[in-house]
Amino acid sequence: MIRKITINNPIDTGSVVKEIEPERHFTTDKELDDATLFERFAADSAAKTLSLVLKDDEQVYGLGETVRGMNKRGWTYTANNSDDPDHTEGKHSLYASQNFFIITDGKKAAGYYVDYPGYLTFDVGYTIHEELRIIFTDLDADIYEITGDGENSPRAIVREFRGLTGQSYIPPIWAFGFGQSRWGYRTEDDVREVADRYEKAGVPLDSIYLDIDYMERYKDFTTDDEKFPGFRDFTAEMKKRGIRLVPIIDAGVKIEKGYDVYEEGVKNGYFCRKENGENFTAAVWPGRVHFPDFLNDDARRWFGDKYRFLLDQGIEGFWNDMNEPAIFYSDEHLKEVFEKIEDYKGKNLDINTFFEFKDLVGTIDNNPVDYRSFYHNFHGKNIRHDKVHNLFGFYMTRAAGEAFDRYRHDKGTDKRYLMFSRSSYIGMHRYGGVWTGDNKSWWSHILLAMQQMPGLNMSGFLYTGSDTAGFGDDTTEDLAMRWTEFSIFTPLFRNHSCDGTRKQEYYYFDDVREGKDNPVKAHTDTRHIDDFRKIVELRYALLPYIYSEFMKAAKNYDMYFRPLAFEYAGDTRAAETEDQLMVGDYMMIAPVYKQNANGRYVYVPEDMRLLRFRAFDDYDEEEVAKGDHYVKAGINETLIFLKKGYKLPFAAPGKNVDSMIEDGATEDSLSELKGWKNLQYI
Amino acid sequence: MIRKITINNPIDTGSVVKEIEPERHFTTDKELDDATLFERFAADSAAKTLSLVLKDDEQVYGLGETVRGMNKRGWTYTANNSDDPDHTEGKHSLYASQNFFIITDGKKAAGYYVDYPGYLTFDVGYTIHEELRIIFTDLDADIYEITGDGENSPRAIVREFRGLTGQSYIPPIWAFGFGQSRWGYRTEDDVREVADRYEKAGVPLDSIYLDIDYMERYKDFTTDDEKFPGFRDFTAEMKKRGIRLVPIIDAGVKIEKGYDVYEEGVKNGYFCRKENGENFTAAVWPGRVHFPDFLNDDARRWFGDKYRFLLDQGIEGFWNDMNEPAIFYSDEHLKEVFEKIEDYKGKNLDINTFFEFKDLVGTIDNNPVDYRSFYHNFHGKNIRHDKVHNLFGFYMTRAAGEAFDRYRHDKGTDKRYLMFSRSSYIGMHRYGGVWTGDNKSWWSHILLAMQQMPGLNMSGFLYTGSDTAGFGDDTTEDLAMRWTEFSIFTPLFRNHSCDGTRKQEYYYFDDVREGKDNPVKAHTDTRHIDDFRKIVELRYALLPYIYSEFMKAAKNYDMYFRPLAFEYAGDTRAAETEDQLMVGDYMMIAPVYKQNANGRYVYVPEDMRLLRFRAFDDYDEEEVAKGDHYVKAGINETLIFLKKGYKLPFAAPGKNVDSMIEDGATEDSLSELKGWKNLQYI
Repeated sequence: MIRKITINNPIDTGSVVKEIEPERHFTTDKELDDATLFERFAADSAAKTLSLVLKDDEQVYGLGETVRGMNKRGWTYTANNSDDPDHTEGKHSLYASQNFFIITDGKKAAGYYVDYPGYLTFDVGYTIHEELRIIFTDLDADIYEITGDGENSPRAIVREFRGLTGQSYIPPIWAFGFGQSRWGYRTEDDVREVADRYEKAGVPLDSIYLDIDYMERYKDFTTDDEKFPGFRDFTAEMKKRGIRLVPIIDAGVKIEKGYDVYEEGVKNGYFCRKENGENFTAAVWPGRVHFPDFLNDDARRWFGDKYRFLLDQGIEGFWNDMNEPAIFYSDEHLKEVFEKIEDYKGKNLDINTFFEFKDLVGTIDNNPVDYRSFYHNFHGKNIRHDKVHNLFGFYMTRAAGEAFDRYRHDKGTDKRYLMFSRSSYIGMHRYGGVWTGDNKSWWSHILLAMQQMPGLNMSGFLYTGSDTAGFGDDTTEDLAMRWTEFSIFTPLFRNHSCDGTRKQEYYYFDDVREGKDNPVKAHTDTRHIDDFRKIVELRYALLPYIYSEFMKAAKNYDMYFRPLAFEYAGDTRAAETEDQLMVGDYMMIAPVYKQNANGRYVYVPEDMRLLRFRAFDDYDEEEVAKGDHYVKAGINETLIFLKKGYKLPFAAPGKNVDSMIEDGATEDSLSELKGWKNLQYI
Repeated sequence: MIRKITINNPIDTGSVVKEIEPERHFTTDKELDDATLFERFAADSAAKTLSLVLKDDEQVYGLGETVRGMNKRGWTYTANNSDDPDHTEGKHSLYASQNFFIITDGKKAAGYYVDYPGYLTFDVGYTIHEELRIIFTDLDADIYEITGDGENSPRAIVREFRGLTGQSYIPPIWAFGFGQSRWGYRTEDDVREVADRYEKAGVPLDSIYLDIDYMERYKDFTTDDEKFPGFRDFTAEMKKRGIRLVPIIDAGVKIEKGYDVYEEGVKNGYFCRKENGENFTAAVWPGRVHFPDFLNDDARRWFGDKYRFLLDQGIEGFWNDMNEPAIFYSDEHLKEVFEKIEDYKGKNLDINTFFEFKDLVGTIDNNPVDYRSFYHNFHGKNIRHDKVHNLFGFYMTRAAGEAFDRYRHDKGTDKRYLMFSRSSYIGMHRYGGVWTGDNKSWWSHILLAMQQMPGLNMSGFLYTGSDTAGFGDDTTEDLAMRWTEFSIFTPLFRNHSCDGTRKQEYYYFDDVREGKDNPVKAHTDTRHIDDFRKIVELRYALLPYIYSEFMKAAKNYDMYFRPLAFEYAGDTRAAETEDQLMVGDYMMIAPVYKQNANGRYVYVPEDMRLLRFRAFDDYDEEEVAKGDHYVKAGINETLIFLKKGYKLPFAAPGKNVDSMIEDGATEDSLSELKGWKNLQYI
């Protein structure tokens, strides 16, 4: 059942697709303070807070892509989409706001969706371990309670909630292949080298991502004539090799005389404006930019159609970045900072004033002041950005998704395009996937990625994954291998890293052994590229399972990744197991995420069959009984646990996804395990 | 056996107390490059590197207080004492340099000590997983190989190494009690409140720490007349209540006309100088300071004797901080930064130039440029600071340690004083302990602290512990409780937090429930202070064990905390268990360090007896067989595993350590379990 309560005058975010009549609409503080919402929440309108008492045995799941464990209890999460690359336990916001959570004690459950696009805090037993509080900036919201359709389990609640918010985005099938990325491929030849090296090593590869260097001076919908001189031909050349190029798109449009996107935006009034009506100027990659007002229908349509510049050149996928939006600085605030810096000159800066000075510069980017200084034209109203901040990435991605529909219509095709975004809000899941942003090459971030998956799936974000081997900081070969052993199960499977960090294409580590990048000396009697190849091949071999389970989840409003807690309700050991995942209906995974470990503890929630893969065609198998086990897993071994009696569909891996599909196979047939070449069951 | 090799002209660091004749002294590159050092290391003098091949089954332990696991394999560690509060997996240096490590395959072992006080990198299978490399800045070093005295086990190697470097510092017995600290106690009344609240709650307490606010304008060896108006009386008042005050000492001396320490230092030439002979000016807490040249015997003696200002007022313990040394800025570099900032004004700052600008300010503090711009007078020679950087904290603490000897001599007493330091180098362990610096209120930092303990113990730092409940970021009640359940086993047991973070004195969390600090509403039916009290009482009850095992380790050059790998050689499961610790000869601990967990996996390396404590007088007991177990541990339960047949000595906890000791008991008798009131065995 879905119940809805409306408080004052909510902004229509577009996240919900079903009209639900509110059972109450509160319009005065007194009414609200006197009520008990959904028989559980007490309101304090003065504090702009709703709160409830959490019982000792209640767990809280959801809130999408946030730090800490699957059970969110014990921390504060703030819906405030943030470009913050340091995903430590101390953070409250990452790139996304998914304001949906489920409270369950293992026996019964209820879900709550707080549809509110501004700054919103969920204090989940942080201030007081026995209390959950929702703290609003403005008390204007639609709040839904979801208790399941017929059945009252977390999974049933998720299905009902997802019916409310609409079917999840489905990418093209090639987007389930392996993608290699790095901010640092500066020329066509850099990209060719990646393709050549993977081909030489026999590692399957479906896509190479283009980070910001393919553009001319970081201008959206341009390509650099010097570094990528024949972009259309280059796209075709790579496609011929079975590799799709996936370019990045920035949320900001460079201010540059004569640049068509800029000129059109200015001319038509498509950019976000300051209070005085002038276009708001922020800075991102190219320096000074204007932000398209994606919340404005006309501007959104205009920007979306710009993707055709690349679609027309053969591009079939994109990633939308910096759309929190990230702001390096605004003209006004930067000027102010430069002025304030003068105050510190020639002074004796002590522990107080020195850090004040440092923070002055340290907090220039993504400064709250800037988010309060520009406006959108949303539903015909002028709305200050911070009131709808968390919708920006959603509507940028919606711009693309709606444009793809028009493009398909114009071309008379039903071709799917790859689209995922960094920033998101519930509703965006209908238009694209997400990746978990700029993580680090830390062992703890394998676990973080695992723990983020169920929260994202609950909110409808099924096409998702993390930057394998880590984006920031330097990776190690063993980290890259262990991370890959997890990522082969994520729908989005991409190795991505930051300019300036250690390279992490899988062939790189042997290069170091051979001395190519090695200042000291060679070490020649070990090679690991074959191990990496076998793990990536295992991904491809598993595609029939991964794809069919993904499609089932998408079509049935279900989850592809689930916490054990959702599968084994009432099993308290399962509920506390936060480093294993259910993948689809029949599989459990337990990736190793500790350095120098050759195995790990696994809680087996029912009798299962364990497959230990060294390669898709090299594995051993054992029965494991319900209970606790220490399971061996060498550095190149991937563990898969299957429900008893289930036979795993399995295909011989090809060099890319297309090569594994029989002629005439369709999305539907493949979802039903028909049309895969060499399908077998093990 | 200890073997020594000398390369070129090492600096005598003072870390070693035994004269060992080098078996070879290399003075030319050719000689070195042709040799195989200790039958294992190859030298590359052009690359200033020694390297060896690591076998697949070899683990590497040691390197003191560094990030990542107990087995250091798979990362790069740099000896470069650093004031860096973000102890993430991506870091290479923390506050200390302990250049001693052991390589073992579980069957045989060898230790290596690289006595070199400058910037030194240990690449332990990072660049190539099968290679360990030591990369010098200058090839001038003494290198020792230690293979054990009679017995070739890691523990025997540690004992032999510690014989080489001298007996560990032993603190006064009250320093084994609980200490409460926070940067944020601004007045005598703030401190009194802490004492009152703990007394009221019945929580034992031995010390309250004074962070920087007790001083007048952050000047060493002053007290603030307004906020701490009667410091001598206040010290006596607290002492009468059974509580010692422990003030902080900064490595920098404020530049202020008329301030005696400053004036004397200038007059006698005791400060570090620039190349041109002027005193070097850096900034720390008070703003501009000079650094005493602790490496200069006269200056060290002078500074050490300054501690008498506080000793004479009844103070019996200190913590030396900021002695990496931390540098907020130097006059010269700050001026340069202000000038360079001008270049960025009025420009279109893009992704490259904006971050350049931000970094310009972001890297002002602890900038390598500054460490190359001042000099020491060491052994009669003028030595540039960066060449001996890692000795600074050591020699500051040595200043205090030597001064305490003189003070004892002058007063005709054998009283011990508490002394621990943030920065360290091997050798300093003779003069004081260390704490693990400015950690965070992160669950992963409980584990980090556990993993840091053996590396510190190996190097002689026995008196050590972490900031319980975390220094930076905001704590939670459950984190504080779990962390305390670990810290009751660390010799230094202190709850410490940073100004501006959430309070974490143990009584605070109930205050929030009662609404004292709570903006929303009270939640009144739960109290946890009694749980905290019982855990702290358990620490006191365990003091006979903790103290006698600590003293045994100190006197026998042994380790108090050991990895399971050291105890159960050849047991590969034990070797991979990095989240449990041997404590003394008879105990193993397995603290819970995951949020929302009510138990954990434990590898039991031999049949043992498990005690599950809810309070010192409320526990249950079971036999656990060698093997893997999932062990329940509720939020207030502390697990202790004992070797079979061992009876745990145990005393009734008092309000502080002194109250638990019989009249006439001595350090020696207490070490031998005589003189504790109400001693029992369980």
